[in-house]
Amino acid sequence: MPTIVITGTGLFTPAESVSNEALVESFNTFVQRYNDAHASEIEAGECEALAPSSAEFIEAASGIRRRYVVDREGILDPERMVPRLRERSDEEPGVLCEMSVHAAREALEAAGRTPADVDCVIAACSNLERAYPAVAIEVQDALGCGGYAYDMNVACSSATFGIQNAANALQAGTARCVLLVNPEVCTGHLDFRDRDSHFIFGDACTAVVLERSDDAVADERWEILGTRLSTQFSNNIRNDFGFLNRTSGSHAGSRGDSGGRLFRQQGRKVFKEVVPMVAALITDHLDQLGLAAADVSRFWLHQANLAMNQLIARRVLGRDADEKQAPVILDEFANTSSAGSVICFHRHRADLGSGDVGILCSFGAGYSAGSVALRKH
Amino acid sequence: MPTIVITGTGLFTPAESVSNEALVESFNTFVQRYNDAHASEIEAGECEALAPSSAEFIEAASGIRRRYVVDREGILDPERMVPRLRERSDEEPGVLCEMSVHAAREALEAAGRTPADVDCVIAACSNLERAYPAVAIEVQDALGCGGYAYDMNVACSSATFGIQNAANALQAGTARCVLLVNPEVCTGHLDFRDRDSHFIFGDACTAVVLERSDDAVADERWEILGTRLSTQFSNNIRNDFGFLNRTSGSHAGSRGDSGGRLFRQQGRKVFKEVVPMVAALITDHLDQLGLAAADVSRFWLHQANLAMNQLIARRVLGRDADEKQAPVILDEFANTSSAGSVICFHRHRADLGSGDVGILCSFGAGYSAGSVALRKH
Repeated sequence: MPTIVITGTGLFTPAESVSNEALVESFNTFVQRYNDAHASEIEAGECEALAPSSAEFIEAASGIRRRYVVDREGILDPERMVPRLRERSDEEPGVLCEMSVHAAREALEAAGRTPADVDCVIAACSNLERAYPAVAIEVQDALGCGGYAYDMNVACSSATFGIQNAANALQAGTARCVLLVNPEVCTGHLDFRDRDSHFIFGDACTAVVLERSDDAVADERWEILGTRLSTQFSNNIRNDFGFLNRTSGSHAGSRGDSGGRLFRQQGRKVFKEVVPMVAALITDHLDQLGLAAADVSRFWLHQANLAMNQLIARRVLGRDADEKQAPVILDEFANTSSAGSVICFHRHRADLGSGDVGILCSFGAGYSAGSVALRKH
Repeated sequence: MPTIVITGTGLFTPAESVSNEALVESFNTFVQRYNDAHASEIEAGECEALAPSSAEFIEAASGIRRRYVVDREGILDPERMVPRLRERSDEEPGVLCEMSVHAAREALEAAGRTPADVDCVIAACSNLERAYPAVAIEVQDALGCGGYAYDMNVACSSATFGIQNAANALQAGTARCVLLVNPEVCTGHLDFRDRDSHFIFGDACTAVVLERSDDAVADERWEILGTRLSTQFSNNIRNDFGFLNRTSGSHAGSRGDSGGRLFRQQGRKVFKEVVPMVAALITDHLDQLGLAAADVSRFWLHQANLAMNQLIARRVLGRDADEKQAPVILDEFANTSSAGSVICFHRHRADLGSGDVGILCSFGAGYSAGSVALRKH
């Protein structure tokens, strides 16, 4: 079987960002206005007063300090609290396509490739912009790639699942150069009125170029030693926005104000259930590859919650990991869904040497988890 | 490389169906009521009168006589013209999961497999029910399969693209038994008030089991001789329903009454552009495999339009194909998006003998097209 390598990565970050302080100021204004407007019902005990938040609470709960966003003004307007993106005509590139093209160009340049070299484009992310045409085909066209393209979605694990699909295609010979993009506009499916979750997501897009080692031209190559994926159904992270919403009645019940059409989670349950699932996945994967945890120089983990990552690393290593061994980008980016672990890999690998091994690992809604073992050539 | 075979297929069809006559009666009632309500504006030339349709027009234009649907009553109610599906709680299986489980059980039984044998579930269709958790993970859980699962989407070509992904995974060793499901609720994203398109879709779900030939237990095996995929971006078939709709203003402009959130197409352009694309794909694929068109006993083509399929077959064969060589299920099912070519394969292969070769081919929005060459063992 041919050796498959990652030869380039790219990252697009929106120009605007929002600090915890700015987010909290907007949120607390919304809370004050809500409580004032419902003063009498609250007084009469017919309605619950909303609780304000604080920048300290957010950082302590998550490790997040700020996040990049596609539209700061719409999110921070306490009368809106939804990003404002202009309507685009069919002839203009979509939002996800635009982000993907930026990240893709950087990844292709790093790989020493042009779009014409690419014969497979995979758009893998937690929320696609439309039903059809596929976002990946739009990206393929915008860049001028050949071959074929398709969209896939398995929430926060979309990138690692996409990497396995890319490696499979290269090994089976159904592609020679794969471009994977992970465009995530997480602020588009986030309820900025929900104190428990309004702070956890940011926007970004990553890109990864994969080829057979004997085709590659880049000097920096990361061999895929193996991939291991796992999914276990859970309702603890859900987003029920979908094309069948129009066929049914109200979206009341357990689904909150958004009608379940935005991100919602049972955070404590997720923490409790996903940590052991991911630790076991990584440990089993290392066993399968005949590697010990001590052989792993770096863990590029999905960036959802600092405490979660620290606990996963501790379970795998049997001791605490330092910032160098399990780098954190959460403080700057927040959770960018499938892009998170790839941003971590993109930002924190330059210091590693030939032969060094690292684990790129995603986890999230589904539940889904993916482990990709990489060795620097 | 191991030989990959299809060892079972399954089909779920909704219990209800709608004839052209019933559909036209509802549509024409809507048209009459609309024209009556706008009589004065129409009289004054400020508003265009809607034109009624006929069962004869529909059959002549498409070859469609009836279609299976998830909800007949909601579609035929001239005051609604949208399927009515009850809201489901998180604890209940979703609509797509339910359809998929029915089709999957039939496919697994044909393959002599149980859900426990499956270690990869792919849900590939033109419109997923929600952002997350992935429908495929829900199906994996409902059946009791192990391993991993993910969703993918490339419109009407989702099934052939899914077959290639499954074959790649089996060849690369990242799966041993793949279950592919194609749940299509096309009536959920169709504008039943649009005379040009209200008749073209139906609902159905197909399932395909794929394994390595040396693992297979079923007597009937269809070897995958090769797959070939192609995509070329086009705005001529679009559905702009998506999670970012809420971030932008109105959806007026070129996008019609539905705001572009339902299926819309430039039918003549699609016909003119897709026919040569698909004919070239099949011809190139046969050349690549060292096969002549005359070596192909059967073409299981995507079922969108009868004239389109006849023209594609004629271009590939150099003469007209008979009903036996290029079977039609369009009259009974209408266009079921990604399920169409698989329904055709499911229904029309029993008479073929050992060594016989067939082409399973999809095409549609994107544009996307996929060719899978199969030989009966």
